[in-house]
Amino acid sequence: MHILLTLSYDGTYFSGWQKQINQRTVQGELELALSNLLKKQVQVRGASRTDAGVHSRGQLALLKEQVSIPIDKLPLAINNSLQTNEIVITDAIYVNEDFHPQNSVYKKTYKYFIYNHNFLNPILRNYVEFVRKPLLLDKMKEASKYFIGEFDFKAFCSSKTQANSTVRTIYNLDVYENNQNLICIEVTGNGFLYNMVRIIVGTLIDVGLEKIYPQKIKDIILSCDRQNAGKTVSPNGLVLDKIYFYN
Amino acid sequence: MHILLTLSYDGTYFSGWQKQINQRTVQGELELALSNLLKKQVQVRGASRTDAGVHSRGQLALLKEQVSIPIDKLPLAINNSLQTNEIVITDAIYVNEDFHPQNSVYKKTYKYFIYNHNFLNPILRNYVEFVRKPLLLDKMKEASKYFIGEFDFKAFCSSKTQANSTVRTIYNLDVYENNQNLICIEVTGNGFLYNMVRIIVGTLIDVGLEKIYPQKIKDIILSCDRQNAGKTVSPNGLVLDKIYFYN
Repeated sequence: MHILLTLSYDGTYFSGWQKQINQRTVQGELELALSNLLKKQVQVRGASRTDAGVHSRGQLALLKEQVSIPIDKLPLAINNSLQTNEIVITDAIYVNEDFHPQNSVYKKTYKYFIYNHNFLNPILRNYVEFVRKPLLLDKMKEASKYFIGEFDFKAFCSSKTQANSTVRTIYNLDVYENNQNLICIEVTGNGFLYNMVRIIVGTLIDVGLEKIYPQKIKDIILSCDRQNAGKTVSPNGLVLDKIYFYN
Repeated sequence: MHILLTLSYDGTYFSGWQKQINQRTVQGELELALSNLLKKQVQVRGASRTDAGVHSRGQLALLKEQVSIPIDKLPLAINNSLQTNEIVITDAIYVNEDFHPQNSVYKKTYKYFIYNHNFLNPILRNYVEFVRKPLLLDKMKEASKYFIGEFDFKAFCSSKTQANSTVRTIYNLDVYENNQNLICIEVTGNGFLYNMVRIIVGTLIDVGLEKIYPQKIKDIILSCDRQNAGKTVSPNGLVLDKIYFYN
């Protein structure tokens, strides 16, 4: 049996998930903690590459090792071995050896937070996109429904993408006020292209500011032209919330 | 007329409010921003000294200067002059020249946040006290009522206090679950001794963990002995929420 870890992290001061030489990354910190704990060189495979500044509540990391620590004690043991509390393991389960951190995943949920107020709340500065002008939530809600379904999302994808196909399915896209002045955009799909959530949010902000009509979303998707969509908002507001997998 | 600023800040990476040589402080950063904006050496006086790591939503700072910028444009002008968004000016009003940042204040509200869950949420790590064992909220609520009134709070005060009198009045003390797993302790009083809120919270946590009976609070207050109260919890969970003043 292999072990699948669920982890939360604050991505603010990391160069993203993926290990890179001379960079502080989540994967690097986690592998260091596991290697110290298990007293051998250990590698993990993540289910999702998150960019620098992006946070997680539901990242998955696969560990193909025999571990003598009982599975229910493992999260705490790893947390104690981690050199920072910017990363917290919240669950560990056994999975079959054919579990694959990409192929076994069928659905992901991201949340994006926008702080919409005259003045930024400083304790939220690393966790939101700050928009000073009032956003029309009803317009954003109306626009959100046009994203739902299977589409070629080429217009909502960084030119840096390496994906073979830019067709993805969005199952759900909700826009709601989470707290006073804090707007949450929650999106669930079978997969996301590079920067896709951040470009969708940038476009929904344009709708909320009445720069784009809600119905225009349909045309932007059909155009397959990145130029027609909104800007790529900051990674700070983005949280990888949940990853759904077969096991 | 003088000018009274209201400011929010994230205290995590500051050595507290008060200016100190070779330390990064909120007052120091604010005076630097104001001096650059007004093109002369400017000082402010704060209404409350907050310790390193303590946050604010309602700190007040008095500026005794003639300013040509219209008062309603002043917060944004100062925010643009600040070199960090860890500090945000949220309001500016004119006050009479006899306004005094301590003597004109008659009431303050602090909030303290406790994250009560098996695993810490990493994005809250600088804004909460993390308590892993389940807290009994009902016991804490019951205990909280014994703090309300005018008492000698010597037992709830750091020995480092320089106050002449340790008598203070608490008008209100609420304990409630703010969000899932996030407990807020909100306390309003005519003034607070050094570390007073943090020791009250430490004692309420002991009540929530059933180390102290709620009724015991009465005896601890009467004892005037710091040894009988709970530990001083971390500054991270503390927010100076609101300052009430005469003008």
